[in-house]
Amino acid sequence: TNPVFTGVETTVFETMSRLAMAHKAVNLGQGFPDVDGPLDIRKAAAKALIDGSNQYPPMLGLPELRQAVAEANSRFYGLDIDWRTQVIITSGATEALTDCIMSLVEPGDEVILIEPLYDCYLPLVKRAGGIPVRLRVTPPSWSLDLEALDAAFTAKTKAILINNPMNPTAKVFSEAELAAIAQLCVKHDVYAICDEVYEHLVFDGAAHRPLMSFEGMAERSLRIGSAGKTFSLTGWKVGYITGAPDLIDPIAKAHQYVTFTTPPHLQKAVAFGLAKGDAYYDDLVGDLSSKRDRMAEALTKLGFGVLNCDATYFLTCDITGLGIGDNDVDACRRMVEEAGVAAVPVSAFYGGEAPTNFIRFCFCKQDHVIDEAMSRLEGWM
Amino acid sequence: TNPVFTGVETTVFETMSRLAMAHKAVNLGQGFPDVDGPLDIRKAAAKALIDGSNQYPPMLGLPELRQAVAEANSRFYGLDIDWRTQVIITSGATEALTDCIMSLVEPGDEVILIEPLYDCYLPLVKRAGGIPVRLRVTPPSWSLDLEALDAAFTAKTKAILINNPMNPTAKVFSEAELAAIAQLCVKHDVYAICDEVYEHLVFDGAAHRPLMSFEGMAERSLRIGSAGKTFSLTGWKVGYITGAPDLIDPIAKAHQYVTFTTPPHLQKAVAFGLAKGDAYYDDLVGDLSSKRDRMAEALTKLGFGVLNCDATYFLTCDITGLGIGDNDVDACRRMVEEAGVAAVPVSAFYGGEAPTNFIRFCFCKQDHVIDEAMSRLEGWM
Ligand SMILES: CSCCC(=O)C(=O)O
Ligand SMILES: CSCCC(=O)C(=O)O
Repeated sequence: TNPVFTGVETTVFETMSRLAMAHKAVNLGQGFPDVDGPLDIRKAAAKALIDGSNQYPPMLGLPELRQAVAEANSRFYGLDIDWRTQVIITSGATEALTDCIMSLVEPGDEVILIEPLYDCYLPLVKRAGGIPVRLRVTPPSWSLDLEALDAAFTAKTKAILINNPMNPTAKVFSEAELAAIAQLCVKHDVYAICDEVYEHLVFDGAAHRPLMSFEGMAERSLRIGSAGKTFSLTGWKVGYITGAPDLIDPIAKAHQYVTFTTPPHLQKAVAFGLAKGDAYYDDLVGDLSSKRDRMAEALTKLGFGVLNCDATYFLTCDITGLGIGDNDVDACRRMVEEAGVAAVPVSAFYGGEAPTNFIRFCFCKQDHVIDEAMSRLEGWM
Repeated sequence: TNPVFTGVETTVFETMSRLAMAHKAVNLGQGFPDVDGPLDIRKAAAKALIDGSNQYPPMLGLPELRQAVAEANSRFYGLDIDWRTQVIITSGATEALTDCIMSLVEPGDEVILIEPLYDCYLPLVKRAGGIPVRLRVTPPSWSLDLEALDAAFTAKTKAILINNPMNPTAKVFSEAELAAIAQLCVKHDVYAICDEVYEHLVFDGAAHRPLMSFEGMAERSLRIGSAGKTFSLTGWKVGYITGAPDLIDPIAKAHQYVTFTTPPHLQKAVAFGLAKGDAYYDDLVGDLSSKRDRMAEALTKLGFGVLNCDATYFLTCDITGLGIGDNDVDACRRMVEEAGVAAVPVSAFYGGEAPTNFIRFCFCKQDHVIDEAMSRLEGWM
């Protein structure tokens, strides 16, 4: 069997969810909300199941969803996107990443990854035959070392994969960082695969700016969005890729052979959802940021070194000196077994030589669930 | 960009569907029923969207669906499958093929493909770094040349990919053919990836027998099924892989990085569907085989050389001497433009040096739609 997938671990998110279930723990590990997204969106999907067609939709996605994605790009970022040639719908953002990596990367190509990294990046790049080049950002600021960035680009660099807003650091890349990345991509003629699934979960009035909107980037960026994250329906697995027509073309070919299409009733409902007014998006941000504050305050009281959180579902905390485990993995194991609270060890987001003093909590949970978890931790510590 | 996906064509099924729409043609190209599957299954999915969880299900699939798949393996084929370790749910059979090929094949491995072949097989094997070895079956019998089969196995053979029942030939492999394949797989220690999406669409009292059920094959076969095909809901994109635990393990890792999961409401509904009584499966076969007969009779009258059809959605016809085009591609182009009927050129199912005198019609359409298409053809010819 292929060595890339042989002997690898089950993803830490799944593993922690299984442990959470086994130990009846409060699951603050895997990133998903514990209240499903808008009922009207779910009803739209349910209606389409009964009244609509349940056969293959167009391979690129339903026109109405591709139009809605193009419109959202214009509405939120002022990007001018032709829905016919620049948008493709995928079975989740994970498939979107697979399609981009499999179609853009050739064996021997270098792909720059920013570490800590989401756990599918490394195996996908390796399975595509690419050579991952890991560039690390370090806490507490997680800011990009621009000299190291410059040095990471070589004649063999084919692409940079950037997760902005970034999991698990909860960082939003600064204008200066994005400008530097853009400049290097243009200079070295490199593609940017932009995993922007948390684009609408940015707090405190800050704005998400797609790398694609920087000069010279429209023709070389692939922007990946996620209905699961935007509408609190992570199980739906509807993603979208926006990019230049001549990149979307080979990516569509990968998509055609990897999953071919995405269920039409879900596409219809997501098109409906994307057209929601600003109030929906504002409420989502308001709701999530108050949960973040609630959890951050409680964790700080318990002695966790809570890092800054500008976006995403996640709080990353320094556990140094807390005496809850020898390292992050041990702390998470003990926490789920003894305290009944599941979190994720941040070392799982590294390709090697990881720091072992950080754990990640997911805060998109009901207030009483957050409170229950915090009181369990308090009792345990 | 990667050469495997650069400059390749949009799949012929999609292309013909687009042409059918543009020319308001009756679409007998792409394989999908024009009446959606059971309302109670769709209602079960709709209910789960409203009442159930819409967050990530377990990566391997919902336990209830994995159990239902294991039970179906026992009920229909007497296979003894442990749902915990031997079943994985995918976002359609296409993803299942991707997962199997990406996880089993290493660069340089030979993979035997039986030609004519479904169009994702070649690019997926190539993108995995594998070397496709094409073994041809020829009309009208499409029977396997057992000497050529033997010769196709070499020291570098990693897997054979077999589509049984087979699209577009509508062939069900014989016991003798399956036994020969099994024997060679065991002898050469080769995996069998068994695309059995048409397992329940086998006509005239014939029975489907999984390659997995032959001696020595349980430990080396991956059996792929499709809810879309079994329940006439091709847009749902729910597939399943059954296999030995030590093969399912790396395949699950590929799945985890390719799509991660499949929508839970669809999984629930498919679990409900798989438990349907024999009447459902019998009716499906009765219904489809009468459509096959209806279309075969009409096409024969029009002079098409209709080949035998034991299974699937498809009739393959020899167009020699009909004077409807210079070759199959030309005939299909003229037919969609001039007659308003879309079919698929069978040469699209070959990696090269294809016969050009066969076209494929999809017969899983309402009687009046079949009749309309046949009368359009009659008027045109
Ligand atoms: C593949 S489960 C992932 C959920 C998530 O994005 C995370 O927890 O980081
Ligand atoms: C990818 S569309 C495929 C439908 C089908 O299986 C076929 O028409 O052969």
